[in-house]
Amino acid sequence: MTLFKRQMKLGAFLPAPGHHVAAWRHPNVKPDGGMDFEYYKSLALKAEDGKFDMLFLSDGVGIRTHYKNKDELSRWGRIVQFEPITLLSSLAVVTKNIGLTATSSTTYNEPYHVARKFASLDHLSNGRSGWNVVTSVTDAEAQNFNLERQPSHQTRYKRAREFMQIVTGLWDSWEDDAFLYDKRTGRYFDPDKLHMLNHSGEFFSVRGPLNVTRPLQGYPVIVQAGSSEDGQDFAAQWAEVIFTAHQTIEQAQLFYKDIKKQTLKYNRSPENVLVMPGVFPVIGKTQAEAEEKYAVLQDLVDPQVGLGLLTGLLGDVDISHLPLNSLLPELPETEGSTSRQKLIYEQARDQGLTIQDLYLSVTGARGHRFVMGSPSTIADQLEEWFTNEAADGFNIMPPYLPEGLNDFVDFVVPELQRRGLFRKDYEGRTLRENLGLQRPVNQFA
Amino acid sequence: MTLFKRQMKLGAFLPAPGHHVAAWRHPNVKPDGGMDFEYYKSLALKAEDGKFDMLFLSDGVGIRTHYKNKDELSRWGRIVQFEPITLLSSLAVVTKNIGLTATSSTTYNEPYHVARKFASLDHLSNGRSGWNVVTSVTDAEAQNFNLERQPSHQTRYKRAREFMQIVTGLWDSWEDDAFLYDKRTGRYFDPDKLHMLNHSGEFFSVRGPLNVTRPLQGYPVIVQAGSSEDGQDFAAQWAEVIFTAHQTIEQAQLFYKDIKKQTLKYNRSPENVLVMPGVFPVIGKTQAEAEEKYAVLQDLVDPQVGLGLLTGLLGDVDISHLPLNSLLPELPETEGSTSRQKLIYEQARDQGLTIQDLYLSVTGARGHRFVMGSPSTIADQLEEWFTNEAADGFNIMPPYLPEGLNDFVDFVVPELQRRGLFRKDYEGRTLRENLGLQRPVNQFA
Repeated sequence: MTLFKRQMKLGAFLPAPGHHVAAWRHPNVKPDGGMDFEYYKSLALKAEDGKFDMLFLSDGVGIRTHYKNKDELSRWGRIVQFEPITLLSSLAVVTKNIGLTATSSTTYNEPYHVARKFASLDHLSNGRSGWNVVTSVTDAEAQNFNLERQPSHQTRYKRAREFMQIVTGLWDSWEDDAFLYDKRTGRYFDPDKLHMLNHSGEFFSVRGPLNVTRPLQGYPVIVQAGSSEDGQDFAAQWAEVIFTAHQTIEQAQLFYKDIKKQTLKYNRSPENVLVMPGVFPVIGKTQAEAEEKYAVLQDLVDPQVGLGLLTGLLGDVDISHLPLNSLLPELPETEGSTSRQKLIYEQARDQGLTIQDLYLSVTGARGHRFVMGSPSTIADQLEEWFTNEAADGFNIMPPYLPEGLNDFVDFVVPELQRRGLFRKDYEGRTLRENLGLQRPVNQFA
Repeated sequence: MTLFKRQMKLGAFLPAPGHHVAAWRHPNVKPDGGMDFEYYKSLALKAEDGKFDMLFLSDGVGIRTHYKNKDELSRWGRIVQFEPITLLSSLAVVTKNIGLTATSSTTYNEPYHVARKFASLDHLSNGRSGWNVVTSVTDAEAQNFNLERQPSHQTRYKRAREFMQIVTGLWDSWEDDAFLYDKRTGRYFDPDKLHMLNHSGEFFSVRGPLNVTRPLQGYPVIVQAGSSEDGQDFAAQWAEVIFTAHQTIEQAQLFYKDIKKQTLKYNRSPENVLVMPGVFPVIGKTQAEAEEKYAVLQDLVDPQVGLGLLTGLLGDVDISHLPLNSLLPELPETEGSTSRQKLIYEQARDQGLTIQDLYLSVTGARGHRFVMGSPSTIADQLEEWFTNEAADGFNIMPPYLPEGLNDFVDFVVPELQRRGLFRKDYEGRTLRENLGLQRPVNQFA
């Protein structure tokens, strides 16, 4: 091991009480953790002990669960949770090093609000904020924002592109050294270092400037998860961390190679785009113990919930009329997540899974990579992808909390550290520094 | 003094680095406090030491300062600041008792976001959140949200009324005891205690439910400041704390009597609406010391800034062509704050002030009540309004920070406590309990 060995990046994706759809029913789980600050605080501190680059929170502006009626919905956990930007603003105070990445939708927000809230969070956290940019994928969210159906996939991405131009432009309203605070002359800032945006586009007109100083990181770290054609093109232009879903190393390598190449068309350097696939790890001291842990969770899956989960992943395509032991038919196009629909459909076809097999296979990883075994087995599997150009790191999705996170921090992280693949302490002060990403220069300076 | 003597309520209205327009130039002031969390933390802790009911933060979604060009703007302080909901989410962690009230606009937000963020803040703070509802008053803000001019005063209030119905409806999505977390039966909540909103109105369609549990306080405390006819009617229906601007006890008594009466038409009880006028206190050990402190600030006022401030208070009516020593002419109607325009205009007329006199008179209090003198003089003046049906409490607006706040906490609060007018310790756990306000029942239960 040399001092300069390439280092794996790790995100802790922590929706209370865990990623497995039945996590809340697990005997060791606090089922109301989603609204418990002390619970989240202890998770964040544990992830920070594990030297994770960032804590990652997903988000929906509505209940995104696919359900037919209230009775069916009442069988799901993880329906209510803190709004992520408020939660991360609180967690900023009790943590020191870990990055704080929140999801926020470009489809159901105005760019001025998003620019401002993330700039504010970046200052509150001393440069540790990240923004996971999503275009949202459910009609349920649209229905909380004056629409019956979500805008088309294409429209959402067009809006997202303009949204990014505005948000980054607002972050550059003030140059880093714009403020003089000159009490004697009465000059608060240097007028030449203030840049009005005066944006007028297809979706938005935004004059600026932002009423928050430039984020400490220049921009918060931009994270993105879309993997459709539009999603990849968007990522190539804007993303600094890409949270992908792949099940085989071949798929992952193809994506990795392709996306790094696509960055060139936007004059970006491939090393400024980190590919971090999601990984759902079930960890035991032995393979057998891990399998036993997984079986406990699988036994707790309510069939209605399993089917609802699958329906959601397929882009809200209704399959409730089909027998559970039948194969999945060809699916109509969705305006939801086209890449996830495709991934799940191909999995079913390639492995010959019935609908029941299929929903039982997505209860935890939801299409992401599923690894199960002892700490060294897990480390082997992460190392394989990391050293073979399939990943720059991983977004870890613990099955249930806090145990799934504790297992990873206590057993897998030390193993990765022993192998020289992962930091023993934070390298920098900001999320951007820890991820090894450049600080963006002000586009107007 | 009996145990049940009526108690004064106090808000600490704390825009860094203070309310006086030249505060940032004061020698003892940290001019970049608006973006400094440690600074805000120490203010919040000081206000909590002083047993203030709440910390109050104003807000604009843009730079609301009236300015002609960048050069003129560069002479203003207080241009950049934390976004208040993120800031209060951070402050929630470092404080225990003080209420945390943020301003949020109904004109430039969607109700789902506002309902969610305040519900989340209410949980993060263990029931200490308040929402100061504003309709916003500047075109500068409209121009950050796809508009050239702000919607008319009437339209803004129509929208605000519908907005409140939706937000309170979303807060009532879940009954207080809706969640069962029944691991054995797999029932996460009782479906009869979930209420879909299904709102469809003139401005909004919102299906619900909220993806956050009901706020600990039922609803965050609703604060409102509008004093126009529309504003008063809105306050009578929705406000629990009214932040008003009055300069004489007669004006304040008239308002007090009138607004308490107006609550009856909405079947509300007058004691559930607290009238808390703004007070700008300049405190010295003696009257002379207070006057000297004020003179220091007044000497630091840049004439351009003073005139810009006055222009903004008059509703962005341009008066730059008028000589500074002339009287204010009759003003055209504004779509900004009509009540503030009227108040300032009447002050000028009644006192025969020139434009220069007038801007120098609004540099601190901005039309709110201005009190200056020793701690006991200040206490006398607060007591007079409090015991004569002009106020239930006050929103204290320190001239510069932290000194203006320290002076109030160290010298005026003990005087009010000695007189039995103000608490020596917090009565309750939540902001609502400290203010003596009822917890709203769920409208759908």
